[in-house]
Amino acid sequence: MGKLLNGGLAVGGTLLAFGALKRALNPRPRYAPWEKPRYEDFEKRVCIVGGGFGGYSAATKLTELTNGREDVGVLVIARDNFFTFWPMVPGIVSSDIDSRNVAQPLRRALITAGASFRRAKLKEIDHENQRIVTDGGLDFPYDQLVISLGGQPNFFGIPGVEEHALHMRGVEDAEHIRNRVIERFEEVSLMRGEVPESKLTFVVIGGGATGTEVASEIHTLVHEALAPDYPNIDPNRVRIFLLEGLPQILPELDPSLQRAARTRLFNEHIEVMTSTFAEEVTEDQVRLKGGDVIHSENVIWTAGNRPNVAIHDLGLPVDERNGIKVDEYLRVEGFPGIWAIGDCAAIRDIREGFEGRYVPPTAQAAGQEGYTVAKNILATLDGREDELEKFAYKPLGQLVELGSDFAVNEVMGVRFSGLAAAIFWRLAYLVRLNSPQSKIRIAADWISALFVRPAVTQVRGTSQE
Amino acid sequence: MGKLLNGGLAVGGTLLAFGALKRALNPRPRYAPWEKPRYEDFEKRVCIVGGGFGGYSAATKLTELTNGREDVGVLVIARDNFFTFWPMVPGIVSSDIDSRNVAQPLRRALITAGASFRRAKLKEIDHENQRIVTDGGLDFPYDQLVISLGGQPNFFGIPGVEEHALHMRGVEDAEHIRNRVIERFEEVSLMRGEVPESKLTFVVIGGGATGTEVASEIHTLVHEALAPDYPNIDPNRVRIFLLEGLPQILPELDPSLQRAARTRLFNEHIEVMTSTFAEEVTEDQVRLKGGDVIHSENVIWTAGNRPNVAIHDLGLPVDERNGIKVDEYLRVEGFPGIWAIGDCAAIRDIREGFEGRYVPPTAQAAGQEGYTVAKNILATLDGREDELEKFAYKPLGQLVELGSDFAVNEVMGVRFSGLAAAIFWRLAYLVRLNSPQSKIRIAADWISALFVRPAVTQVRGTSQE
Repeated sequence: MGKLLNGGLAVGGTLLAFGALKRALNPRPRYAPWEKPRYEDFEKRVCIVGGGFGGYSAATKLTELTNGREDVGVLVIARDNFFTFWPMVPGIVSSDIDSRNVAQPLRRALITAGASFRRAKLKEIDHENQRIVTDGGLDFPYDQLVISLGGQPNFFGIPGVEEHALHMRGVEDAEHIRNRVIERFEEVSLMRGEVPESKLTFVVIGGGATGTEVASEIHTLVHEALAPDYPNIDPNRVRIFLLEGLPQILPELDPSLQRAARTRLFNEHIEVMTSTFAEEVTEDQVRLKGGDVIHSENVIWTAGNRPNVAIHDLGLPVDERNGIKVDEYLRVEGFPGIWAIGDCAAIRDIREGFEGRYVPPTAQAAGQEGYTVAKNILATLDGREDELEKFAYKPLGQLVELGSDFAVNEVMGVRFSGLAAAIFWRLAYLVRLNSPQSKIRIAADWISALFVRPAVTQVRGTSQE
Repeated sequence: MGKLLNGGLAVGGTLLAFGALKRALNPRPRYAPWEKPRYEDFEKRVCIVGGGFGGYSAATKLTELTNGREDVGVLVIARDNFFTFWPMVPGIVSSDIDSRNVAQPLRRALITAGASFRRAKLKEIDHENQRIVTDGGLDFPYDQLVISLGGQPNFFGIPGVEEHALHMRGVEDAEHIRNRVIERFEEVSLMRGEVPESKLTFVVIGGGATGTEVASEIHTLVHEALAPDYPNIDPNRVRIFLLEGLPQILPELDPSLQRAARTRLFNEHIEVMTSTFAEEVTEDQVRLKGGDVIHSENVIWTAGNRPNVAIHDLGLPVDERNGIKVDEYLRVEGFPGIWAIGDCAAIRDIREGFEGRYVPPTAQAAGQEGYTVAKNILATLDGREDELEKFAYKPLGQLVELGSDFAVNEVMGVRFSGLAAAIFWRLAYLVRLNSPQSKIRIAADWISALFVRPAVTQVRGTSQE
C-alpha cells in the first residue's frame, strides 16, 4: 500500500513538474485570439516598420509599458517573419549551432506580447493621411510611426566587391560562406596535379567583430570539421587572411584585448594585415593599395555598413552617410509623430567627449534606441511632452568569440579573455535569445558538440536531377 | 582528507566517463590519413556509383567484410556529400526535426569505414578500359562496378504536374512544402475581404506512405505551429486532400492498419479520396478524372517513381519502366563485373507468389540489395563464384508516422498503431541513423518538442535588399 502510494506520488509529482516547465516555457499570450481588437480599431496606433533589434525592442517595450491599458495598439511591419540574432550568425559558419535557431520567430514573440505583426515591405508614407503603404497596395494608419529599416553593406565603390565577394548580412550569408568552404574542399579533392593557391585561400575584408569572428570560424570549420573528412587535403594548405584598414583590428576594444585576439589569431595561423585597403576584387584575386595581390577565389566582405537605401523614398530628411536626421529625442526633424532608430537613423552621440559623432550602427545601440523611443512615444501619446528622454548611448561592452573555447570580452569596463570568456559569451547570449525553444536547442547543440564533431553536409539541390 | 579523496575520485570518474562517451560516439577510423593507400593503388577496386541507401549499404558491407584485408579498395562516387535518411524527410514539414540531421554526412561515415569518397556525377562508363568518367573529365578505374543511381519522380505525362506541383524527393523539397504553407498564411493574413479557397487548400497526390505522412504533417504544422501565430486566420478554413488512385491508401499495409490510418486522418479532417485520378494540374486547380475540380494553389506530388533517366546513357540493357536489367544475383545482364541495385535496377522478386513481379523501389529493399551485392562482389573477386547468393527480398514491415503521437506499424508480421507505435517509430529510426551526432540532436529536438511548440521561421533571402 505504502509503495503504491509512493509510486503514485512520484508519477503525480513528475506530471506536475512537467506541466509547470511546459507552462514556463510557453508564456500565455496577452490576448486570446478572440479578444484581441484589430490594430485599426485601437484609439492610439503605433506603427513600427522594421523587425530588427531596434523595431523589436521598441515594440516589446511599448507593449510592456501599456500592459493593462486598452487604448494603445502596436503593429510591426517587417520584410521577414523572423528576427536575426546577429551575435550568433558567424557561429553558423563552423556549424556549432543550427541556423533555424538563430533566426528567431518574430511573429510569435510579438503576438504573445500583445502586438500585431504583418509581413510586408514599406513602399511609401502617406504623410497627409497618416498612413503607410506597403507592396501589394495595402495601407495601415498610424498616429505614431517608427522607422527602423536597418542598414545594408557599403562597398565604398570598390570595383568587384559586389559581384565577387560574399557578404555577411544574415543567416543565409553565413550558410553561403560555409557551403563555399565545403565546395572548395570538394573541388580540390577531385584535382590531380597542382592546386591553384586561390582555391584554398580565404580573404576576410574588415577587422571588426564580425570579420574577426568569421575568419576564426573558417579556421574552426577547416581544422575541426573538414580535415578528418578530406584525408587527401592538407588543412595547413588553407590560408586565411584578415584585412583591416585601421592600424588595429577590433578597434572598439581595449588594446589589451586587441593583443589577446591578435595572439589567438596568430596561433591559428590567420594572417592579419592592418592598415591595408583592398582596391579591387576580381574572380580570383584581391588587389591591395600599394600594388600587392592576394590570389583568392573566396573573398568575404564585412568592412562597411550604410543606412538602408529605402529611406530615400520616404520624403524624410536624410543625411547621405548616416541616415534619417533625428533630434536628440529620436524624432525625425520637421515631422511630428515620426521617429527613426537603428542603423537607418543618424543619431548624435550626446556623451561627453563624443561631440560631433554619431551613435554606432550596432545591434546593442539599436536595442537601447528602441527602449527610449517606446518611452518617448508613450509620453507623447499621453501629452507628457515634458517627460521626453534624450537618447544617451550606454555601451555595455563587446563580446567577441574566436572559436568555441576562446573569446575576448569587455563588459561594463571589465575585460577578460580565454575559455572563461567563451563560456560567458555563450551564457550571456543564450539568456538574450527571445525564443525559449531556441534556447533549449542551442544549448543542446553546444552540449552535443562537446562529444561529436559537427557534421559536414552541404544541402543543395536535392530536387534537381 | 577523505572528502578530498572522494571529490578527486568523483572528478576523475566524470572525466573518464566523458572520455569514454566521446570515444564511443567518435569511432576511430580504419586508416589514419597517412596510412590509407590511394584507391587506384589497390589490387582489386570496387567502384560504387550512388550514395543512397543501396550504395551506402553496399560500401559499408564491403568494408566490413574486407576488414583485415588490404587488397580490396572501395570508392563511392555520389552527386551529393550527404545521404538522405528518407523515413524522416516528411517530419521536416512540421519541423519536429532539423533538416541538417536528416541529411546524414556520407563522406565521414565512408571514410571512417575505410572507403574513399568523391563527390562527382557519372557521365559514362568506358567499358573497354574498365573506367568510369565523371563530369569535369575525371576517370576512375574499376574491377567491379555497382550502379545505384536511384529514381526520380514519375509524372505519368499528366499535364501541369511538373510545372505546378511541389515534389517530395528530399530535404529541400520538404523545406519548400513547409515554406509554402507558411507563405500562404502570410499572404492570407494580409488579405482583406474574401480569401480565395485555393489559397488554403492543400492537395497531396499519392496515398502511399510518403503522401499520407506529408498530409498529416501539413495538418500538424497548421494546427500546432501556425494557428497561434496567425490569430486572424481560422485554422479550420484549411482543407487538406489526399488523393489515391487505388481503392485504398497505404496499399502495402494490412487492412486493419489501413483502417486505423483512415480513422486518424478522418479525425484530423484530412479528406481522403481513393480511386481518384488527377487529370490535369493548373496554377490554381486540380482537375480530376470524371470532371470534378479541386481549387488549390498547393499541389504536392508523391504518386510515382521511375528509374533515374541517367541509366540510359551507360550502354547497359534497360527495361524502360523498371530500370537496368539484372539477373537474380544482381549482375547486369551481359556485362560481367557490373552490378545494379536500388530504384534504378529491375530486380525480379523471387519470393513464392510474386512471380513476374519486381522488387519494390523502397529504401528498405535497396539496403538489402546493397548487402547482397557486397557479398556477391567479394565472392566474385575471390573466385568463389559457386557461393553467389540470389537476392531474396525480405520485407521487414513498414512504419508510417501520422503526427508526433500516432503511427501505424507492421514489423515482421506484428501490427500495432497509436502512441506506442509512434514511440516505436521514433526509436527504430533513431537507431538506424548512421551519424551519432544526428542521433543526439534529433533526440534532443524530440525531447524539446515535448515542452515548446516548433518555431515558425521561414528563412529566405536575408542577403537580398
